[in-house]
Amino acid sequence: MRTGTETCELTPHEEIQSRINRFKEKMAGADIHFSIIMGNVDLFYFSGTTQRGILVIPLESDPLLFVERNQERARRESPLTITPIAGHGDVHDILSGKGILRGRGGMELDILPVSTYERFRRICEVDSFADLSPLIREVRMVKSAFEIRQMKRSGKIMDAVFSRAREVIQEGMREIDVEAELNAEGRRRGHQGLLRMRGFNQEMMCLYVISGQAGTLPTAADVTIAGLGVTHALPQGSSLNVIQRNQPVILDYGAGYNGYITDETRAFVIGSLNEKLARAYDVSREIIEETAAFAREGTETTRIFEFARNRARAAKLDEYFMGYGEGKVGFIGHGLGLELNEIPVITARHRQTLTEGMVFALEPKFVFPGEGSIGIEADFIVRKETLERITKTPLDLVCL
Amino acid sequence: MRTGTETCELTPHEEIQSRINRFKEKMAGADIHFSIIMGNVDLFYFSGTTQRGILVIPLESDPLLFVERNQERARRESPLTITPIAGHGDVHDILSGKGILRGRGGMELDILPVSTYERFRRICEVDSFADLSPLIREVRMVKSAFEIRQMKRSGKIMDAVFSRAREVIQEGMREIDVEAELNAEGRRRGHQGLLRMRGFNQEMMCLYVISGQAGTLPTAADVTIAGLGVTHALPQGSSLNVIQRNQPVILDYGAGYNGYITDETRAFVIGSLNEKLARAYDVSREIIEETAAFAREGTETTRIFEFARNRARAAKLDEYFMGYGEGKVGFIGHGLGLELNEIPVITARHRQTLTEGMVFALEPKFVFPGEGSIGIEADFIVRKETLERITKTPLDLVCL
Repeated sequence: MRTGTETCELTPHEEIQSRINRFKEKMAGADIHFSIIMGNVDLFYFSGTTQRGILVIPLESDPLLFVERNQERARRESPLTITPIAGHGDVHDILSGKGILRGRGGMELDILPVSTYERFRRICEVDSFADLSPLIREVRMVKSAFEIRQMKRSGKIMDAVFSRAREVIQEGMREIDVEAELNAEGRRRGHQGLLRMRGFNQEMMCLYVISGQAGTLPTAADVTIAGLGVTHALPQGSSLNVIQRNQPVILDYGAGYNGYITDETRAFVIGSLNEKLARAYDVSREIIEETAAFAREGTETTRIFEFARNRARAAKLDEYFMGYGEGKVGFIGHGLGLELNEIPVITARHRQTLTEGMVFALEPKFVFPGEGSIGIEADFIVRKETLERITKTPLDLVCL
Repeated sequence: MRTGTETCELTPHEEIQSRINRFKEKMAGADIHFSIIMGNVDLFYFSGTTQRGILVIPLESDPLLFVERNQERARRESPLTITPIAGHGDVHDILSGKGILRGRGGMELDILPVSTYERFRRICEVDSFADLSPLIREVRMVKSAFEIRQMKRSGKIMDAVFSRAREVIQEGMREIDVEAELNAEGRRRGHQGLLRMRGFNQEMMCLYVISGQAGTLPTAADVTIAGLGVTHALPQGSSLNVIQRNQPVILDYGAGYNGYITDETRAFVIGSLNEKLARAYDVSREIIEETAAFAREGTETTRIFEFARNRARAAKLDEYFMGYGEGKVGFIGHGLGLELNEIPVITARHRQTLTEGMVFALEPKFVFPGEGSIGIEADFIVRKETLERITKTPLDLVCL
């Protein structure tokens, strides 16, 4: 039915199989005998389709994909055995007929609402389910060659948007005017239309254009620089603030292609930055470039955090590093994939050894209250001997 | 800090008070002694701010708003007493110190993830919580004059987007090209940046541009016409399909202003529709216009559904009405407000008597497999003697 110029690759069948095998190893390690997966993103990851349904992965037998609709589309997209159902109630009879509901079951407890969980608990006549989410997140943490290919396509949208930004940003425009034009550019390049972030109350727009003081307010969102937004009903993102000469303009963009998200930040200025902001920008760039030079498979994430914090401290900028006051966040990087907040999270405390195929965003940023915010975010693939950039956009401050 | 041309109205203090009073009446009726509210939208509705926090409403005393951050912004936006906290653990000591954790508590069980619920259950030393969501949804169902003012501002964004669509839509454009341009128009007019839809796995974009056969595929989403999307990872929305002469083009847009959503659909065609589609369009319009002529305060929603279905049946179009085959949905309208899927839902089964101040979208649509989809969606405020339209865009098919 598609008549456009391109279509997205389906997830290869052998890849689905290998994901399920890796997940079953985690299930065995956690003593979980059957997994019931309902979240859109996890469903897509393990089945290759995002139709309305329930995926059951028994430890000892083949996965079953129950689909309410669309049957035809699920069959075309997924290599798994598909069982049509009219509703959740049908699932119990089939599972208990096959003897699957024995032993310890698991569900996605970090995203599944209590009422859905309770209904399913009654349907399955099970006392409680273990939390699958840590296992799922671990399996998803290491990306395959197929996934990295999708992320590089996502990175091309990113490059196109940052390139177009040089033409779009002008003195006197409001933040939302810049956002409107650049989101349109991303969509025309095939952006999937929205970004996914795991967890309760997580709301995410595709692009944050934040200029001058708008970048200095601590916000509810778990990010360093979230912007004012246009309403206190949704207090994040681009605002009605007008872009002014010699003020930093931050663009934090999430590209999405075939499910896969890249997430980078660049800084622009019409004119030039004052010395303090320019210095902080340089420190951001040094942190990214020097991390890219030493980190690789085997590096511990805590070492990356420590390195960045020490750099900020040496530059006497630690007070402003990763936010100011109550707005300070505890991470300088985060995993990326089908969701914007995957693991590894790069903090002082969560020690994780980098492995080839992990993908993460590194985002050293500084917030100077009453002045403005500045920083860079760049995405990396972990390789055996190095970190590999996903996008091609240079890390330089763009002076217009 | 805002330097733009307008700012959104804060929720009036007396309105917050009246919302809480109405909610306390529902709590008393359901024998709930204290409510713990954590969802962004409900938090905003009852407090006037959307900062990271927890709202506790005890039946017998004043509400307490616990805020992690941003304190200053919460204080500026909310009339409630604000208690700073470092994390959820702090809440227990304060609540138990005040003797609030006695009797039956309630939480939002339709949106709260199991892991958050369990953590809070342990913090509060409570066996289980009742579900607050039905009560909250009932309180939110009837809109105040303030809320209707916001919805009319949202409707102005809608009108601007539909008006601009007449200039934008052209033969040979892809659906995503039209979407990109019109979303940009909406954002420049002050669109809040995203739409909220309540519940698990609900993902919603602002605009769906769907042409020809792209509108005929049943999808996972709970809507009649959801589109193909650009990837099976997110299989809804505008696609790469190219708009062709004499094919219907459906625009389903959600405007959002100061939290409040309007949701309308119009149909466009370059050239003209075939007789079957044109006839179905006329039936859609008749259903909306005739419903607007008889419905008012006191009308039962089931009567609206029956009326519409009978109309479709009389036109021998019931097979295609509200979807075809497995894609058929059971509703022809839904409430609107801070979320896209509020109550009342207009179905054959959920009987609800309309009351002044309810706001709903009425969306008679037809899906003809292999040909295309057609229909209209328009938003109404229930008044004592009539239904009042929110937007000004005419219901006519737009021939370009």
